[in-house]
Amino acid sequence: MSRRAVALGGGRGLHTTLTALRRVTDDVTAVVTVADDGGSSGRLRRELGLLPPGDLRKAMVALAGADESSALWAKLFQHRFGGTGALAGHAVGNLVLAGLLEQLGDPVAVLAEAGRLLGVRGRVLPMCTEPLEIEADVTGLDDDADVVRRIRGQVAVATTPGRVQRIRLHGPRGSGEPPRGCPEAVQAVLDADVVLLGPGSWFTSVLPHLLVPELHDALTRTSARKVVVLNLVPQPGETEGFSPELHLDVLCAHAPRLRVDAVIADTGAVPVPDRLRRAAAALGAEAHLAPVAAAGTADRHDPVALASSIRRALDGPAEGAGGASSTTLSDDRTTRGGEAPWR
Amino acid sequence: MSRRAVALGGGRGLHTTLTALRRVTDDVTAVVTVADDGGSSGRLRRELGLLPPGDLRKAMVALAGADESSALWAKLFQHRFGGTGALAGHAVGNLVLAGLLEQLGDPVAVLAEAGRLLGVRGRVLPMCTEPLEIEADVTGLDDDADVVRRIRGQVAVATTPGRVQRIRLHGPRGSGEPPRGCPEAVQAVLDADVVLLGPGSWFTSVLPHLLVPELHDALTRTSARKVVVLNLVPQPGETEGFSPELHLDVLCAHAPRLRVDAVIADTGAVPVPDRLRRAAAALGAEAHLAPVAAAGTADRHDPVALASSIRRALDGPAEGAGGASSTTLSDDRTTRGGEAPWR
Repeated sequence: MSRRAVALGGGRGLHTTLTALRRVTDDVTAVVTVADDGGSSGRLRRELGLLPPGDLRKAMVALAGADESSALWAKLFQHRFGGTGALAGHAVGNLVLAGLLEQLGDPVAVLAEAGRLLGVRGRVLPMCTEPLEIEADVTGLDDDADVVRRIRGQVAVATTPGRVQRIRLHGPRGSGEPPRGCPEAVQAVLDADVVLLGPGSWFTSVLPHLLVPELHDALTRTSARKVVVLNLVPQPGETEGFSPELHLDVLCAHAPRLRVDAVIADTGAVPVPDRLRRAAAALGAEAHLAPVAAAGTADRHDPVALASSIRRALDGPAEGAGGASSTTLSDDRTTRGGEAPWR
Repeated sequence: MSRRAVALGGGRGLHTTLTALRRVTDDVTAVVTVADDGGSSGRLRRELGLLPPGDLRKAMVALAGADESSALWAKLFQHRFGGTGALAGHAVGNLVLAGLLEQLGDPVAVLAEAGRLLGVRGRVLPMCTEPLEIEADVTGLDDDADVVRRIRGQVAVATTPGRVQRIRLHGPRGSGEPPRGCPEAVQAVLDADVVLLGPGSWFTSVLPHLLVPELHDALTRTSARKVVVLNLVPQPGETEGFSPELHLDVLCAHAPRLRVDAVIADTGAVPVPDRLRRAAAALGAEAHLAPVAAAGTADRHDPVALASSIRRALDGPAEGAGGASSTTLSDDRTTRGGEAPWR
């Protein structure tokens, strides 16, 4: 039987994980963030009050079938209208998903139907069935570097020139109640043999899943092996200057009860391996360092290398995994402004 | 073997013919006008420089499969975005066809691909592979009722308060060269056992086909039985006040070499049957009068009744068909302003 794999994330990072996971198993479920408010997705969300479809579309395309018809529709889903008019920049797949959402209502049914069109192997699910808004506490925006400002919206958070300290999620009605996890996504995590988190925009695509109580709970209860895939480079804006281990510290701060089994990082992206091993161990994880970056790029994973690394993380013990039982803030972080509030 | 049927037209009229034809044969090809410049189609045409997709979409939906998936996608194709934003009023199917047109270029390939999605039984083809513009000579717009003005664009012609006297087609480059027929559509007419023309907006959906030289030529050369289905009521604007026989006169004036085998008209829509019989005979056709209007409507055909009428027109001689060999302008027309310029 195929291993049941679940990948949590959004955007290009999730596309990478899914492409790699397809090489590992036939049974892949993507659980996708629904907080995007930029680009074509943001326009559709504002205009029609729908779930932002862009990240869902990208995940579907990553899992699309290889036959001619599936490939054609997958390519059409990615096609963006040109010109200078009202449609310019809209991805056709976003419009199809938006139409299906208006027609069917239930996003799980929408994604199943569109999945058939694209010959999707596996399943794409939204993290939540209603659009969410990300809010971040950000410092460094004022003369007084300690002043904490609240920044709202995925684009604003992802591009803030300040330092993101913590994020929160808000539902569509701004009720203050925590967002409710999509039941099928929660069940997929519970039933999984392996759950992947990352790579991707750390605060806006990776961490949001941990702030949905049902998903967080499922992640702590599942017997699945949990694997975190770290980014290759910090992201200008939301994680500028972040060391690899700081990514783990931040994750830990947003989900204190979460234990992880393995952390995959690119050898060339980890200046001090021992620090990463200690940060991983604080989450209960082994660090797996391997060359997983694509040749000729600084910020893209090679799906084949990543797939090998995932296999190793699932099957065997890491080579030279450290045994440290606690972690400390990295020097990188310390030099950028002292104690982070989540410590 | 199924009879090979080809229906020429556009819009709601063509949808009606196709729905009726599906009851007569499994082998239906729709040849669709591509001169629309209104609504969602007009916006897409202007914004992206593409073939207006609306009439093509409607024809596909009329021929869509009955299984659950085909029905869902057909419904989605017809779904129009709500709201008050940039997408409001766009039919999802128009956007999908526009995306495919940008991606594949060849409209015949686009329609084949979309046809698979909708489980289309038969085929939908454009009349021409490039967008066209309709130009009409219109009288009655000035104080001097004889002044002829040129009106451009399908919407303008269809809604003119004046009297349309004659139409012309212009290709996208306004070169003055006649538009070139889609080769697959021309071949379909040549290979057909039966060709239907109408019902529909007479000047803007039915007659344009006759002004494409290759299509007109194919219509005169094909051994198919040619059947004209008349409208139930004159259309406000382009055919206001037109008698049934005047519709035939106009058709004759735009395609003098065309011979027709049968003319189907609703019994209740023909005030003077003998006049219609004479007008039909002038085209070489028998008139088939039968109740083909849908119950409770003045302007919609009942597909089941129309299918029966088509079968009779194909198989047997008309009851009481007149034998007159020439036609005259109807009284209706005479009272509306004298000799028409095409006589």
